[in-house]
Amino acid sequence: MANIGVVTTATNNQVILRNYVSGFPKESDLYIATTTVDLRVPPGSMAVLVKNLYLSCDPFSRIRMEKPDPSSPASVALAYSIGKPISGYGVAKAIDSGHPNYKNGDLLWGRVGWEEYSVITPTPSSHFKIHHTDVPLSFYTGLLGIPGLTAYVGFYEICSPKKGETVFVSAASGAVGQLVGQFAKMAGCYVVGSASSNEKVDLLKTKFGYDDAFNYKEERDLSAALKRCFPEGIDIYFENVGGKMLDAVLENMRTHGRIAACGMISQYNLKEPEAVHNLATIVYKRIRVQGFAAVEFFDKYSKFLDFVLPYVREGKITYVEDIAQGLENGPSALIGLFHGKNVGKQLVEVARE
Amino acid sequence: MANIGVVTTATNNQVILRNYVSGFPKESDLYIATTTVDLRVPPGSMAVLVKNLYLSCDPFSRIRMEKPDPSSPASVALAYSIGKPISGYGVAKAIDSGHPNYKNGDLLWGRVGWEEYSVITPTPSSHFKIHHTDVPLSFYTGLLGIPGLTAYVGFYEICSPKKGETVFVSAASGAVGQLVGQFAKMAGCYVVGSASSNEKVDLLKTKFGYDDAFNYKEERDLSAALKRCFPEGIDIYFENVGGKMLDAVLENMRTHGRIAACGMISQYNLKEPEAVHNLATIVYKRIRVQGFAAVEFFDKYSKFLDFVLPYVREGKITYVEDIAQGLENGPSALIGLFHGKNVGKQLVEVARE
Repeated sequence: MANIGVVTTATNNQVILRNYVSGFPKESDLYIATTTVDLRVPPGSMAVLVKNLYLSCDPFSRIRMEKPDPSSPASVALAYSIGKPISGYGVAKAIDSGHPNYKNGDLLWGRVGWEEYSVITPTPSSHFKIHHTDVPLSFYTGLLGIPGLTAYVGFYEICSPKKGETVFVSAASGAVGQLVGQFAKMAGCYVVGSASSNEKVDLLKTKFGYDDAFNYKEERDLSAALKRCFPEGIDIYFENVGGKMLDAVLENMRTHGRIAACGMISQYNLKEPEAVHNLATIVYKRIRVQGFAAVEFFDKYSKFLDFVLPYVREGKITYVEDIAQGLENGPSALIGLFHGKNVGKQLVEVARE
Repeated sequence: MANIGVVTTATNNQVILRNYVSGFPKESDLYIATTTVDLRVPPGSMAVLVKNLYLSCDPFSRIRMEKPDPSSPASVALAYSIGKPISGYGVAKAIDSGHPNYKNGDLLWGRVGWEEYSVITPTPSSHFKIHHTDVPLSFYTGLLGIPGLTAYVGFYEICSPKKGETVFVSAASGAVGQLVGQFAKMAGCYVVGSASSNEKVDLLKTKFGYDDAFNYKEERDLSAALKRCFPEGIDIYFENVGGKMLDAVLENMRTHGRIAACGMISQYNLKEPEAVHNLATIVYKRIRVQGFAAVEFFDKYSKFLDFVLPYVREGKITYVEDIAQGLENGPSALIGLFHGKNVGKQLVEVARE
């Protein structure tokens, strides 16, 4: 707080990338820096100064910590910069706005820095105003944000589920997986999930409605585990992990099966990605594998909200969050994702509204 | 010729499976047997006795030579039987018919045994009457049969090509690939093919209209070869081979790329399929991989004929065949497929009409 009388600046703690990462990220790859931020946007600017409330911890951040390949413009565009705050999706409140669509006090979600305050320039594909505040605001990092849209688009649009089909979800208690399981039950499917601990397996069966679940760390033979759960095979696989699990799933897919792939978290920290051998199944069984990203389906977002909000309000959809308190606990929360430490959607509460 | 006066039986040479195959098939896995066939179908039967004219050599036969897995009904249904003639697609002429839709002298293509005469029971999804005989009859094993329908459906229906897109075809001079290249040029795409000899590479560029082509056996680094041919990446991959080539292609795919997979011939003879590592690209680039089989698209067959026949008659589509003469040369022709010996569509001429 720099001035007396009118507060125009504030300290702004930030989570900074110390170095590019290869292999598993460590907390020491990030550090907290204290800077100062001007609480007013420059006159005539279209920018919005926001106070960040909740930050989403996303596996995708790991990809952005990789040293960019100078020959790949996409890789350069994606990579975080050393010495600068990392960024991601978050929930924030407008403090000062030069943008005609945002006024002070407005709540929004979208791309922000990992810091207490961010200056953003909203576009219809980067930020969404929050109109429904009778549900927890933190849900806009998960259930009502990118993970929710991912589960919705991936399951309904890409997998085209039919009643009675069998569905397998990996990382099933995570931000996306816990919703896919519930959507699958609503669609009349038989759904099984895998997770990394018995605690999570319990959660899948008791809280998210999964018909069955297994702890992949306790299975010697993933293909045999899948055969046990799906004696007739898998119609739909919601792919979050890749590698060995994908290989085992391919062995167990049914004819005309569909695989929606929005992430392969098991592969992000490996120098050499794991081998997959069973791709000929794609031909034999006429399988469709579709990579997708929710950010390419923002045109479905309002339809998704119309669909999901009534269920949330009626308590028919549940959502488990793992909330780290304070920006200073952001790095360990983010890194914990890659060790499966989170139970449910991992996020960071930076401030309360 | 058993009877004097009325000919009612004939000798029927057959290509018989001697044993199940693991690894590369050998000529000695098959043998020729001479049997006798009754040239009349039993009274009241719906069967048709046909004289086989042309037999198609298909990579898929290798899969059917594998010892069936008794726990898999699909595998059991698919496998050839030891001591019995192998089968596949062919062009044949009705000699005697109990079927209302077929009369003596009718030409047809569809599933027949590897033998001089077969008894078939036609269904709308197993056999097609040949109505257009101003084109070579042998084309119904290739250009106008399953390979043609595969190229048509895979390229137009599954890959949804757009003008200006880049297309890569493996096994590009084969039964399917030579057509995909020509379809790609007709669609205004830039198309590159790979093949297993310099002779085939020349054919691709001089006869099938490929913009560029390479001999994969002479490339140390397949990914580098693809990068050379596609500095901006690949939009569409028509997959015929699998394995290392698929891995290299994944490295070079563009965002929203499409892969149509109808075969993975490089994998059929391996005890352990080759590893593919670059599957995370499917997520990063939002790629669609679709396995398909032409036999599931017979409803498009007449549309396909309407499309392709005028081009064939005007000489705007060309088709190279590699024709082995005589059933006795069938085994070597079939086995040659897996060593890339054929130049163009491999088939066997059993008899002339």
